[in-house]
Amino acid sequence: EIADAAEKLLPAPQGRLSGRKVVITAGPTHEPVDPVRFVGNRSSGKQGYAIAAACRNEGADVTLISGPVSLPAPSGCDVIHVQTAREMMAATEQALPADVFIACAAVADYRPAVETPHKVKKERGGLTAIDLIENPDILATISQLDVGRPQLVVGFAAETDDVLGHAETKRARKKCDWIVANDVSPGTPSMGGDKNEVTIITGDDDESLPMMAKDMLGAHLARRIADKLDQG
Amino acid sequence: EIADAAEKLLPAPQGRLSGRKVVITAGPTHEPVDPVRFVGNRSSGKQGYAIAAACRNEGADVTLISGPVSLPAPSGCDVIHVQTAREMMAATEQALPADVFIACAAVADYRPAVETPHKVKKERGGLTAIDLIENPDILATISQLDVGRPQLVVGFAAETDDVLGHAETKRARKKCDWIVANDVSPGTPSMGGDKNEVTIITGDDDESLPMMAKDMLGAHLARRIADKLDQG
Repeated sequence: EIADAAEKLLPAPQGRLSGRKVVITAGPTHEPVDPVRFVGNRSSGKQGYAIAAACRNEGADVTLISGPVSLPAPSGCDVIHVQTAREMMAATEQALPADVFIACAAVADYRPAVETPHKVKKERGGLTAIDLIENPDILATISQLDVGRPQLVVGFAAETDDVLGHAETKRARKKCDWIVANDVSPGTPSMGGDKNEVTIITGDDDESLPMMAKDMLGAHLARRIADKLDQG
Repeated sequence: EIADAAEKLLPAPQGRLSGRKVVITAGPTHEPVDPVRFVGNRSSGKQGYAIAAACRNEGADVTLISGPVSLPAPSGCDVIHVQTAREMMAATEQALPADVFIACAAVADYRPAVETPHKVKKERGGLTAIDLIENPDILATISQLDVGRPQLVVGFAAETDDVLGHAETKRARKKCDWIVANDVSPGTPSMGGDKNEVTIITGDDDESLPMMAKDMLGAHLARRIADKLDQG
């Protein structure tokens, strides 16, 4: 921790993202039903943490807003821990302005309409259903900011069928600049594993990448982001 | 892993539980809504893993049936990984017969009535509610086995209000021998932390323990179990 604190005091390493601020969300969100139950998403956070580390390695000032995961904080990044989509939304707004926003988290689209302050007991009638309401849409909100929109907004689309079609539709609907599409069908190694196979959809030069380590994909994405910012 | 495999081949250490078989469940269960969403419980698995390690240290043959957690397998224990309550039930039945069954897992009482094989899309109408059905009750089932019931069945009661009252009721309803009651209200260190404060309810010599490390509580419980088995 001392090394980490010292690292933050040092000038950022010279790199292609030196002087740039990057905000990244990672991991799942957990939406409470009561003090012991929640609705969650499967996400290890590994891809988002790898992108944060890669951007930092390129010299960026990185804020990583993380849902509940079991990963060590990437060295040199500011890490903000949150549980719910609403907390992640608030932390993101607070972390702006930034040059780049990367929405890698698997944010829960819905949360329980009611959060019971005590544990719901089975023998008191229990739970027959969890009523849901929509969560704020972090990617769409940041993509459509009138004031202070990051120059580059990158979303992720984890899909199980018609992956590219859904991803392209999501990019248009949310109005982000790029979307990184990956197949998370059961049996693919993307979820929880150390590898990922994605297509980066940019609208002009889509790139289908082979299966690679999440660290490698993070480094590749950091370079592509630097290329884009260099173009202005 | 080689050291671990070697350890399993060695005769069990001489201890007060030597020659005894102990089956322990630990961690949460995750009940799928679709390939990316689930309903889960907050449980780190630390207390169950600590009890498994302590029983092994006393010489027991330990099978640890674990929900999704981020903990290293305790050395010398057989660990079976499961996701859902139904998988945990099946693994428990398969691990019997045993002298002792300790139900430390935070098993989901309910699961989604329907598991959708593809990701439910928000823009296709989405989810307005998750209908729930009851899961099998592992503790009650094992406590009430006509044939092959373990000599000692220990449950856990994580409660947020009237902790001892609810725990005593749970012990009577499920027909386990002992129940370990703890307060998991927000703000207590039990959930996710390294300490726990419990009352062991046995029906004749209840014991309220001070706050202690989960490892220490595991060792204490292993000694009390050995005392009980020694009494026959």
